[in-house]
Amino acid sequence: MRVPLELRRAYKLLNHGPTTLVTSAANGRTNVMAAAWTMPIDFEPPKVAVVIAEGTFTRELVEDSGELTLCVPTRAQLDAVYAVGSDSGRDEDKWASSGLRAAPASRVQAPLVEGCVGWLECRVLPESDVQRKYDLFIVEVVAAWVEDSVWKEGGWDFSAGEEYRPIHHLAGGVFFATGERIQAHKPEGAKK
Amino acid sequence: MRVPLELRRAYKLLNHGPTTLVTSAANGRTNVMAAAWTMPIDFEPPKVAVVIAEGTFTRELVEDSGELTLCVPTRAQLDAVYAVGSDSGRDEDKWASSGLRAAPASRVQAPLVEGCVGWLECRVLPESDVQRKYDLFIVEVVAAWVEDSVWKEGGWDFSAGEEYRPIHHLAGGVFFATGERIQAHKPEGAKK
Repeated sequence: MRVPLELRRAYKLLNHGPTTLVTSAANGRTNVMAAAWTMPIDFEPPKVAVVIAEGTFTRELVEDSGELTLCVPTRAQLDAVYAVGSDSGRDEDKWASSGLRAAPASRVQAPLVEGCVGWLECRVLPESDVQRKYDLFIVEVVAAWVEDSVWKEGGWDFSAGEEYRPIHHLAGGVFFATGERIQAHKPEGAKK
Repeated sequence: MRVPLELRRAYKLLNHGPTTLVTSAANGRTNVMAAAWTMPIDFEPPKVAVVIAEGTFTRELVEDSGELTLCVPTRAQLDAVYAVGSDSGRDEDKWASSGLRAAPASRVQAPLVEGCVGWLECRVLPESDVQRKYDLFIVEVVAAWVEDSVWKEGGWDFSAGEEYRPIHHLAGGVFFATGERIQAHKPEGAKK
């Protein structure tokens, strides 16, 4: 079940580096694409950097609306993620072709993608210089949601099932699933 | 064994979102810190975005030298990565305290970290506005290296051993190892 996540914890949805789905909406149309190049850049208020290539339909909708969502898909959605990362929404309705389903967001017009495990509703910050030079968008997270069956004690816990694990794109449709959880230990005598 | 990697493939070292080690050198001192907030932003010439917080010793050395390296550590280095991500090199020699060992790089003064599986030598691009506002550094990769025992047919292959897997920080010393390799398939009738 999708439940609200405190904004100060929103960075955790992307901190381990999963591939994301970017949704957008403007002028009566919506789109969804995959983006591996997404990362948190601040905690509170949470901000994220995401690369959205020039010429894409997503870029057009994001520039028109100033909004987007970043959703964390799972290995159950593997083929759909790859498909929406390869084709253009200018030519076809990627919702129909991929089987991904949209649900309304709370603070932005861009929809959330059902079946994901994390969702960030975002507003674009006006940084036209890096947008133009590097296709890099700086966004502020205005609402965050998490799938509660894989979220325990304030963090991811994928022991509920393999199909819930996020995916990490290498290249050409090769992904890695999020793997084993491991706990680091500070050496004895360390300061913290 | 560390072998050179073509620059056009350098993005693959970070595409799956691992936590990195950032090294720096200036004024006769070197430092190493951990950074989860690192991602590729372009293919060729390869560029990367990395967050380096204001006030850190790494920030001082990177601003003085205009150079850094980004190294991809493994689960065998888990505790050391967490330690150098928590302590400051201003107060102690993190090389000595962590047990991480430095090796000379080829194009920059900042050293490579031995025992990692990927290495990017980088020069900072002059983007002082986003550096100041978001602690965000845009760097160009000028040399890349990969551990050949986990690199097959132009991409990662971790079947050689669990200890070689990169790590992905969630928060507070909880990491995920890079997991199972999975291949996406385009639906029949898809364009590519």
